[in-house]
Amino acid sequence: MPEIKFVPDNASTHAETGENLLEVMVGAGVYIHAGCGGAGVCGKCQVKVLEGAVTTETLNKAARDKVKPGHTLACQTFVGENDLVIEIPDESRIRKMAVSQGEPVVKGQRIARAEIEAMMLSENPQPPVRKLAVQLTEPSVEDNTADLQRLTAALRATHGADVQDVDFHVLPVLPSLLREANWQATAAVVSGWPCRDASGEGGACRPDHLTRVQPGDTSARNLALAVDLGTTSVWVALMDANTRAVLAEAGDYNQQISFGEDVISRIIFSAKGDGLSELQKAAAGSINKLTQSVLDKAGASRGDVSFIAAAGNTTMTQLLLGIDARNIRLAPYIPAANQFPPVEAAQAGLDMPRGVMLYAFPCVASYVGGDIVAGVAAYGLHKRPEMTLYMDIGTNGEIVVGNSDFMMCASCSAGPAFEGGGLEFGMRATVGAVEGFAINPENLDEPMILTIGRAKPIGICGSGIITLLAELLQFGILQQNGKFNPDAPTRRVRQGAAGLEYVVVWKDDAGVDSDIVITEPDVDNLVRAKGAMFSGAHTLVEHVGLTMDTIERVVITGSFGNFVNLAKAVFIGLLPDIPADRFFYMRNGSLAGARLACVDRAFLRTCEEVSRMMTHVELSEAPAYMDKYMAAQFLPHTDAGLFPNVMQALRK
Amino acid sequence: MPEIKFVPDNASTHAETGENLLEVMVGAGVYIHAGCGGAGVCGKCQVKVLEGAVTTETLNKAARDKVKPGHTLACQTFVGENDLVIEIPDESRIRKMAVSQGEPVVKGQRIARAEIEAMMLSENPQPPVRKLAVQLTEPSVEDNTADLQRLTAALRATHGADVQDVDFHVLPVLPSLLREANWQATAAVVSGWPCRDASGEGGACRPDHLTRVQPGDTSARNLALAVDLGTTSVWVALMDANTRAVLAEAGDYNQQISFGEDVISRIIFSAKGDGLSELQKAAAGSINKLTQSVLDKAGASRGDVSFIAAAGNTTMTQLLLGIDARNIRLAPYIPAANQFPPVEAAQAGLDMPRGVMLYAFPCVASYVGGDIVAGVAAYGLHKRPEMTLYMDIGTNGEIVVGNSDFMMCASCSAGPAFEGGGLEFGMRATVGAVEGFAINPENLDEPMILTIGRAKPIGICGSGIITLLAELLQFGILQQNGKFNPDAPTRRVRQGAAGLEYVVVWKDDAGVDSDIVITEPDVDNLVRAKGAMFSGAHTLVEHVGLTMDTIERVVITGSFGNFVNLAKAVFIGLLPDIPADRFFYMRNGSLAGARLACVDRAFLRTCEEVSRMMTHVELSEAPAYMDKYMAAQFLPHTDAGLFPNVMQALRK
Ligand code: FES
Ligand code: FES
Repeated sequence: MPEIKFVPDNASTHAETGENLLEVMVGAGVYIHAGCGGAGVCGKCQVKVLEGAVTTETLNKAARDKVKPGHTLACQTFVGENDLVIEIPDESRIRKMAVSQGEPVVKGQRIARAEIEAMMLSENPQPPVRKLAVQLTEPSVEDNTADLQRLTAALRATHGADVQDVDFHVLPVLPSLLREANWQATAAVVSGWPCRDASGEGGACRPDHLTRVQPGDTSARNLALAVDLGTTSVWVALMDANTRAVLAEAGDYNQQISFGEDVISRIIFSAKGDGLSELQKAAAGSINKLTQSVLDKAGASRGDVSFIAAAGNTTMTQLLLGIDARNIRLAPYIPAANQFPPVEAAQAGLDMPRGVMLYAFPCVASYVGGDIVAGVAAYGLHKRPEMTLYMDIGTNGEIVVGNSDFMMCASCSAGPAFEGGGLEFGMRATVGAVEGFAINPENLDEPMILTIGRAKPIGICGSGIITLLAELLQFGILQQNGKFNPDAPTRRVRQGAAGLEYVVVWKDDAGVDSDIVITEPDVDNLVRAKGAMFSGAHTLVEHVGLTMDTIERVVITGSFGNFVNLAKAVFIGLLPDIPADRFFYMRNGSLAGARLACVDRAFLRTCEEVSRMMTHVELSEAPAYMDKYMAAQFLPHTDAGLFPNVMQALRK
Repeated sequence: MPEIKFVPDNASTHAETGENLLEVMVGAGVYIHAGCGGAGVCGKCQVKVLEGAVTTETLNKAARDKVKPGHTLACQTFVGENDLVIEIPDESRIRKMAVSQGEPVVKGQRIARAEIEAMMLSENPQPPVRKLAVQLTEPSVEDNTADLQRLTAALRATHGADVQDVDFHVLPVLPSLLREANWQATAAVVSGWPCRDASGEGGACRPDHLTRVQPGDTSARNLALAVDLGTTSVWVALMDANTRAVLAEAGDYNQQISFGEDVISRIIFSAKGDGLSELQKAAAGSINKLTQSVLDKAGASRGDVSFIAAAGNTTMTQLLLGIDARNIRLAPYIPAANQFPPVEAAQAGLDMPRGVMLYAFPCVASYVGGDIVAGVAAYGLHKRPEMTLYMDIGTNGEIVVGNSDFMMCASCSAGPAFEGGGLEFGMRATVGAVEGFAINPENLDEPMILTIGRAKPIGICGSGIITLLAELLQFGILQQNGKFNPDAPTRRVRQGAAGLEYVVVWKDDAGVDSDIVITEPDVDNLVRAKGAMFSGAHTLVEHVGLTMDTIERVVITGSFGNFVNLAKAVFIGLLPDIPADRFFYMRNGSLAGARLACVDRAFLRTCEEVSRMMTHVELSEAPAYMDKYMAAQFLPHTDAGLFPNVMQALRK
C-alpha cells in the first residue's frame, strides 16, 4: 500500500491505490476545508501533489475557475500506485493544532484484508467446493461400469476424491451430458462441510459430496459468493475460490426495508399471511441483484458460481432460509437452529443452478447471529491471547468479550440511530451521506464536511454522526446532557420545531431542498444508542470479572464506510476511554468472514467451533445492566472517572 | 399351516388359512373336474369335507341345483385354521394314476415368506427408517438451546441416535410444530443407508439422517411400502416397519403399458419429446394407485409411511427416477447408475410427504436389474453353499448361477410370452386367466381348467401356458416340433386362420365372446421364449464350468400367481431335467426383497454387496449361446440326452 505524507504537518498514513485523497485525509485525521462534502464544486479542498503520481477527475467549470495553477482538488484526486507527498496550502488547511490540542485519542488502526488472511487462512487452504475435471474412458462391452460409478471412480483415481454422497438431481441428465461432452466433465465436490449439529466435538464428518456436473473442463471457473446479509444493507463479494482473489464487490439496501426498519418489525411482518415468503423473496432479491452486478463486473456468469456463504444475524438468516422466525421475539427467545443443515441456494430463492450450496453461518442465540460469528472468526479472536472487546455496532448491537480461552457474548438493542435510522436527516452509508465532519476552530460557522461518493450532502450516516456529536461536544456547542448550548458562538444553533437544533449543512450547499439539521430528539436517540452499546459492553466486561482498562484490544466493526474515527467514538462515550493503540477497526467483519468461508473449508469448521465456544449472556437478565444503561445517558458518561482523558479534553 | 389330506388318493399338502381349496388342489397336483375355471357355475368340482372346518361362499342358484347333499364346490371353499381331510368323489375325480404314471417330475417346493425371513433377517433387525418419539424440555432463558439442536440432543439422549445430517426442509416449520405439540415430537431417522457408491467395500458410512418431524408421538405408526415395479405389473406391499407384519398387498398393471409392451419400446418412447416424463408419471401413478389401495385396506394414511423400497429392472428403475434411459438400449448398454443416491419419494412423483425416502435397489447391468438383486438377496443365494441356478422368468429373463463364493448373471430377451404377451389369448396373471390346466386322460375333450379369481376364463396367463403346453405335449396333441397333431383323438384340434389350433375353452364356457384357442404361432412364440431362457441358463452354467446336472438347486421366480407347476416347466424344456427335489418356487422374489428392505436396514447393505458380487456375462457375446438357442427350439429340446426323464415319459 502506498504511503501518503502530508506537509507541512508531517502526518502520514497508508492508502490503497484508487482511494479518494479527501477520504484518505479525513480517515487520517488530516483536516482540510471541504465545504461541498467532496462534490467538487466549492473548490475549497485544494492540495498540491509534491511527489508521486495521482489520477484526477476532470473538474467541472465552476471548480476550474477556483483552483490555483499547480493545485488540484483533493476530493477529485485518487491515490496512484506509489507513495505520495501532498502539500496542504495554508488557505485549505484547518490548523490541526487547534483540533489536536491535548488530543485524547487517536484514530483506530484499520485491520486490512491481508492481515485477516495471514491470521486465518489454513496452511493449504482448499475451498469448500472444489471443481474437479476428469477425462473418462469411453465405456465398452468389456468396461461397462455405469455412468455414475465411472465418474466417481475417475474422481477417486484422478483427484483422490472419496465421493460417497451424490445429489440425486445430478443423475437424470448425466448420461447425455457425459456423451455429449465426449466423456470429459467437471464435478463440483463439497468437502469438509461441518456436521455434528448437536453438542460435542464439531467435526467434519460428512463424506465428500458430489453436487453438480458440468460438461468439459470448467475447473478454472470456480467462483463463490460471500454475502453479508445485514438488516439494513447487503454486501456481496465475488470470490475466485481457486485463487482466493476478490473479483468484485457490491452493496445495496436490503429490500426487506420496505417491510420494516428493524428485525422486530420484520418478524412481526413475517407472522402475517405470506409475510415470511415475502421477506424471503426480498432478501433473496437483494442478493440476486448484487450477484448479477458483481458477475457483470467480473465478466462471469451464474453457472460459474459453485458456493455461497451468507453471514447474517439470526433473524436475517432465518428469513432468508424461509424459517419461521416468530420465536426470536417471544420469550425465551429461541432460534429455530444455531447450526444449519446444508441447503441448495435455489431453495432459498437465490437464482442459482441446482447443486450450488448455501452455507449459512452458525448463530449463538436469537440476537447473536452468524454475522458476529463470521466477524469474530475472521478476526481470529478465538486464537488470540489478548483480552478483547469486539463490538459490532448496528441496529442490533452485538458484543463479545474474550480471547482464545473463552468468549462471552451479548446483544443490545441500540436502535437504528448509528445506521441513520430515526434521525431527522439520518441516512444509510450511501452516496450523499455526510461521513466526515470537522469544526474549524477559527470559525465555528464553517465546518468541513465530507460525503460518501463526494456528492452534495443529503443526510448524515453513522460515522458522520459519531464525528458530528464529538465535534459539537468538544467545541461546547452541545452540552454533556445532550442539549445544545443556546449561547454557542455560532449562528448554526437555532430554535427549531422540537427545541434547539444545529444546522449541519445550509440548504444552498445541500443536495436536498432544506437545511440539514440535527435536533435535540436526534441527540437523545443517539445518546440512548451509544449508552446501550457502551453499557452492554461494560456489563459484559464486568460479568466476566474484568474492568474496561484491562481490555487489551477493542475491535469495532459494522456497516460504516471505509473508516470510523474511533477517537470521536470514545469522545462521545460509545467506546471506552482506554489507550488509543488498543483500538482496531475492521471494515464489515461479517463480509470478511464470508469471504474466508468461500476459499477455505477449514474456516467453516472454525465458525462452528466459534459459535459453540461463545457463551451467551442475556443482558436483560443482568441486574447491573439497567443501572449502567441509565448512567450512560450522558456525554460521555455520568461517571467521569470512566472517561478521564475525555473529561480532561472537555475541561480545556 | 393347516395340513390338507385328500382321500382316496392319500395325497397331502399344506395350505394357508383362507386359501381357495381348488387352487390348493391344483397346486398340489390333485386333479379334479373343474370345467368353469372355478367360477362356481359348472358344478363339477364337488368334494366332501370329512374332517375340519372350512368357509364357503354362498352358491348361486345354478350351482346349488347341481351340488349333491353333503358335498361342496372346491372352487367356492376356503381353508380354515385347522387340518382338513377332503374326499374327492368318483364323479369329480380325474384318476391321478393316469396322469402320474411314471411321473417324471414333481411340483416345486414353494419357498414361504417365513423361510425367507428366517434366512435373511438380521439378528436384531432395525428398519432403515426409525420413528423416534421424544419429549423435549420446554426452553427457558437458562436453557436456550435452539429448536433443532434441542431436538437432536433429545434424540441422542433418549434413543442414542447420532443425528449428523438433517434434511433442510424440516427446519422452516420446526418452531411452530414443536410449540403446537407441547414439545412432544416424533422424528423419522434414516440409518445405515449404504454409501460407497464406487468400487470397493460397500459400507454404511452415511451418518444418521433426520428427514421428517411429526407432532406428538407417532412412533407406533411406522409404515413402509415394498414395491415390485415390473415391466408388466406392479405389486405393492404395505409393511409395518416396527412389527415386520405385511398389512396389505395389491397388484395392478404398470400404467406404462400403454406406451409399449417391453422395455425396448418404452426406452424408445422415453427418448421422444417429454416421453421420459410421461413414463415416470405412469410408473409413479401405478404405485400411487396401489398405495392408496393398500392404505385403505389397512386403514392407514400416507402420513404414516416413512420409507419406500422399490425393486425394478434397470429400465424400470431409471424411468421411475426420471433418468435418461436411452443408453440402456444403445451399445455398449451402459446404465446411468448401478447404485443410486438417496432420493425423496416425492421427487419420483410418488404422492408422499417431504422426507419420505425412496430406496431404489442397485442394478448390475443394463439388463440385470434391481429386481433380480432383490430376489437373489432375499433368497440368500449369496449365503448358501449349494450351487444354485436362479431364474426370474419374465419378458426380460434374468438368470444367476452361483453360491456364497461367486455369482454370475446374465439376461436374455425371452419376450412377453410367459407374461401372456404376443399370444392370441395370452393375458397377465389377473382375474379370469387360465392358470391351471389338466387333461382328463379318459376323455381328451374334457380338460380341467382353473382360472385366477375363479372367474369365467377370458385368456391364459404364464403358469397356465406352461401347464397347457406340457399337457398337450404329454398327450400327443402337440408334437415336439411345436406343431399340433392333426390326428389327435380330440375335436379340440382344428384348422384355424393360421394353421392348426387347439381350443382351450369353448365359447359357451368362456367369459369372452369366442373360443379361447392356442395357435401354432403362439406355440412358436412360447418355444422361442422357453428356448431363450433355457439356453441362457445353459450357457451361463457352462460358462462357469459346470453342467446342468451339477446344479444343486433351481429357484424359479417371476410374476406368476401363487404357484407354477415346475414339473410341467421341465416337461416343455423351460427348466432342466434334474431331480425334482432340487426345484424351488419363490413367488415374486423382487417383492420379497423389497419387503425385507422395509424392515431390516442390514438388508440394504446386503443388496449393495450382492449387486457388486454379481459378475455380468453378456450372452450375445458368448459364442455358444446362439447354437444353444437354436438347439432349444424344440420340445423339450433337440438334445434328448439333456431331458432323459421327459423323453422317457414321452415315449410311453
Ligand atoms: S471541491 Fe473538494 S470539497 Fe468542495
Ligand atoms: S363349479 Fe367349481 S370349477 Fe366349475
